[in-house]
Amino acid sequence: MVRWEPGAGERLRVAALELYVRQGFEQTTVEEIARSVGLTERTFFRYFADKREVLFDPQNLLQEAFLAGVNAAPPTAAPLEMIASALATSAAFFPDDRRNWSRQRQSVIAANPALKERELLKLATLAAAIAEALRARGVAAQAATLAAESGTTVFGVAFTQWIADGEQRSLAAIEHEVLGELAALTTGLATALDRGPA
Amino acid sequence: MVRWEPGAGERLRVAALELYVRQGFEQTTVEEIARSVGLTERTFFRYFADKREVLFDPQNLLQEAFLAGVNAAPPTAAPLEMIASALATSAAFFPDDRRNWSRQRQSVIAANPALKERELLKLATLAAAIAEALRARGVAAQAATLAAESGTTVFGVAFTQWIADGEQRSLAAIEHEVLGELAALTTGLATALDRGPA
Repeated sequence: MVRWEPGAGERLRVAALELYVRQGFEQTTVEEIARSVGLTERTFFRYFADKREVLFDPQNLLQEAFLAGVNAAPPTAAPLEMIASALATSAAFFPDDRRNWSRQRQSVIAANPALKERELLKLATLAAAIAEALRARGVAAQAATLAAESGTTVFGVAFTQWIADGEQRSLAAIEHEVLGELAALTTGLATALDRGPA
Repeated sequence: MVRWEPGAGERLRVAALELYVRQGFEQTTVEEIARSVGLTERTFFRYFADKREVLFDPQNLLQEAFLAGVNAAPPTAAPLEMIASALATSAAFFPDDRRNWSRQRQSVIAANPALKERELLKLATLAAAIAEALRARGVAAQAATLAAESGTTVFGVAFTQWIADGEQRSLAAIEHEVLGELAALTTGLATALDRGPA
């Protein structure tokens, strides 16, 4: 979820994930993580608030990518076209050489309810930021929330598929397909609602 | 989120919310909650795992209502028609005389990140259960996840509106409107995707 750059933060990130995968998140201490790359606990806490945060993007780069995508859409774009643009921009964040890292990270998160909670909060925060960007572009409040939440849903479903065993397609390609599936699912919904309860 | 019935569990629930609203979630102890209704801490823990759980439906009655709605839809129903049916069933869980309780509960949750995380996990668990019910009814895996997540999104947006200041409409009426808005948002999306990036 962060740009791949050298430096202590990135070394700690890599070391933490390796330890979480090997011996479990609960069983790993901050001291161990720091020591494994020749750093101190104190340095760790200069980069991350806690043991959970090391698995998340601390600088909100992913959120910035989403918002840049919303703002890159043309003035005439419908709300979900702004979302499609945001998804395309954010996909650049997950090149194919990050897929294995993402797989390992997700396996750690899935095994730990506290990490799962933190991830859901991050996604909800992302959705709220996207909704705000849509509103700033003139989308009505409720429509903005719905579109933003649909966007993070598509992102989540596509991301899960991207890290599935054997998946080879790019995240952008999968997102495009999932957006199409969402469109197909809602086709006919307006008619069905007018018809009343099935 | 729970059936309104007498008994210790319900008394603890009412007392807890009152204390959380009055003095804050962090500042309230389990002992205080129990004492305020003449019960012991030990009794509290017979009903709830922790201080957070007292704000959530411990018996998964809401989830059961959603699943009953999915299964009540006719065999020919499209995935989002099953979702519409689930939303209608679940709305019965929130009659108008629960609105004020729900408002207070939400104000406590919004003020506390740990509660917000717990709520998001509950919603994600609900979405996963709905997706499973859709798959059991023959919906393809990815479509089931998308439809279920869209359903909890609509539920969340409608619920937020239901407890908004001055809102008078029933939850069912609002859900119907929000579903219609989702349908309107996605109209034209398939065409826009075929056209390529805007």
